[in-house]
Amino acid sequence: MKLIRFGTTGNEKPGIQLADDTWIDISAFGTDYDEDFFGNGGLDKLEQWLKTNQDKCPKVDKKTRLGPPLTRPSKIVCVGLNYAQHAAESGMAVPKQPVLFFKATSAIVGPNDDLILPKGSEKTDWEVELGIVIGKKASYVSETDAVDHIAGYVLHNDYSEREFQLEKEGQWCKGKSCDTFAPIGPFIATKDEVTDPNNVDLWLKLNGETVQNSNTSDFIFNVQEVVSYISQYMTLLPGDIISTGTPFGVGLGFNPPKYLKPGDVVELGIEGLGTSKQQVKAYQK
Amino acid sequence: MKLIRFGTTGNEKPGIQLADDTWIDISAFGTDYDEDFFGNGGLDKLEQWLKTNQDKCPKVDKKTRLGPPLTRPSKIVCVGLNYAQHAAESGMAVPKQPVLFFKATSAIVGPNDDLILPKGSEKTDWEVELGIVIGKKASYVSETDAVDHIAGYVLHNDYSEREFQLEKEGQWCKGKSCDTFAPIGPFIATKDEVTDPNNVDLWLKLNGETVQNSNTSDFIFNVQEVVSYISQYMTLLPGDIISTGTPFGVGLGFNPPKYLKPGDVVELGIEGLGTSKQQVKAYQK
Repeated sequence: MKLIRFGTTGNEKPGIQLADDTWIDISAFGTDYDEDFFGNGGLDKLEQWLKTNQDKCPKVDKKTRLGPPLTRPSKIVCVGLNYAQHAAESGMAVPKQPVLFFKATSAIVGPNDDLILPKGSEKTDWEVELGIVIGKKASYVSETDAVDHIAGYVLHNDYSEREFQLEKEGQWCKGKSCDTFAPIGPFIATKDEVTDPNNVDLWLKLNGETVQNSNTSDFIFNVQEVVSYISQYMTLLPGDIISTGTPFGVGLGFNPPKYLKPGDVVELGIEGLGTSKQQVKAYQK
Repeated sequence: MKLIRFGTTGNEKPGIQLADDTWIDISAFGTDYDEDFFGNGGLDKLEQWLKTNQDKCPKVDKKTRLGPPLTRPSKIVCVGLNYAQHAAESGMAVPKQPVLFFKATSAIVGPNDDLILPKGSEKTDWEVELGIVIGKKASYVSETDAVDHIAGYVLHNDYSEREFQLEKEGQWCKGKSCDTFAPIGPFIATKDEVTDPNNVDLWLKLNGETVQNSNTSDFIFNVQEVVSYISQYMTLLPGDIISTGTPFGVGLGFNPPKYLKPGDVVELGIEGLGTSKQQVKAYQK
């Protein structure tokens, strides 16, 4: 299944994108895509429910805004420098174990919402990433068992203000957590839809020009490894998102570096996970 | 007011600690202490409601377990190295601007719940901290206006695994987010109860011996400054917690360092914010 949420900000309803790409409203199912849904067999129940109710579900106009395809999770755990070429362009060593950081969940927006440059930002950058959505509480999980704890996968643009992240002392979260810095979606593809998450193409275009173009087979630490690793340090809850790192081709790596300005258009996609598009705007009170 | 939540883990109910230290159950008020409560005038409404309903509220047996005094917030933002003497004992420079990091909200427990040492932990450490509870959405807030965005204050022990934090590559969150690493409470004191949060004593005892003993007047960045500063980088939501850093006297600063082991007892307190006590236990599946 492909889970979507649609409607105005804060008023999103749950839906499904069908195989023929039409959208249906599954509000009548009775629950949103939240921690309780993922943690209590919601995906299985929804699949059963659709067998008898799908035809009665209202169609959704495809001009409707898409929201993030799940409600606010307890956390977004990001893996840094998880592609060798990206570590090199960032001037950092290839890590021997996953580098982790958090992104504030208040940064989450819909996949095609505007990117708002924070006040004073001169170094806002893009990062196409494969997101893992947790389906079952995970604490001290082995790599072998990791897949049992995954609900599905989602496209994420891990926007990053490089000055805030790297030049303001301390930890990276300062440059990762600004409002609108986490467009998620268009949909969550349940794991049965993704044959091998460790071998999918991902790309990002700036104003129509391809700047990132890679494949998750270049991961330093793959999906099973990062789920297992993170679960040794904290409990992952249903609905939590792990963002698995970005490949080569971010603005920081250009010579000279290339950062976003009002009017820019960012488009990105992952094989099997759809595409998203953000218009870059200046902050206005 | 002093807000408490009581009952077994996951089944906590909201209550109030009265001036004479008795606890009452305010479930009949109808809402828990969550984002919606703090963000929509819940404190004022509750104060009004108590005027006519307090006498009808059931008393709570003081042997009842206390839970964290609010539901899971969207984030815990921590300020690192915010006391000069603590920066020195950590072998780090006094920061010129606040160092920020996140602690996973899945680490939150009640004030007197056990501290569970993570698997393989040999360097788990304590950190008594003043927590700020946000009462109103805060984005680009000035220092002058910061206090308008504060609901109250709370005691927090920012447990930290120093090996996970400092020796495992990358960012601090790895050593800050283990389950049970964020005992919060006993209560949230609303801001009217705390004359000057930038001048309160705070202390921590290990097995009866005082190891931290300071005053928030030693802050490098005070309460207004950190609220304003953080709000330049991310939006703080009602119920979010800012943990303002710990003073001198953590285990890492001892020579040789002194870390927690099963059987240890940690007690801590802040003037006007009560005390908490954690028994240290080994992880057992």
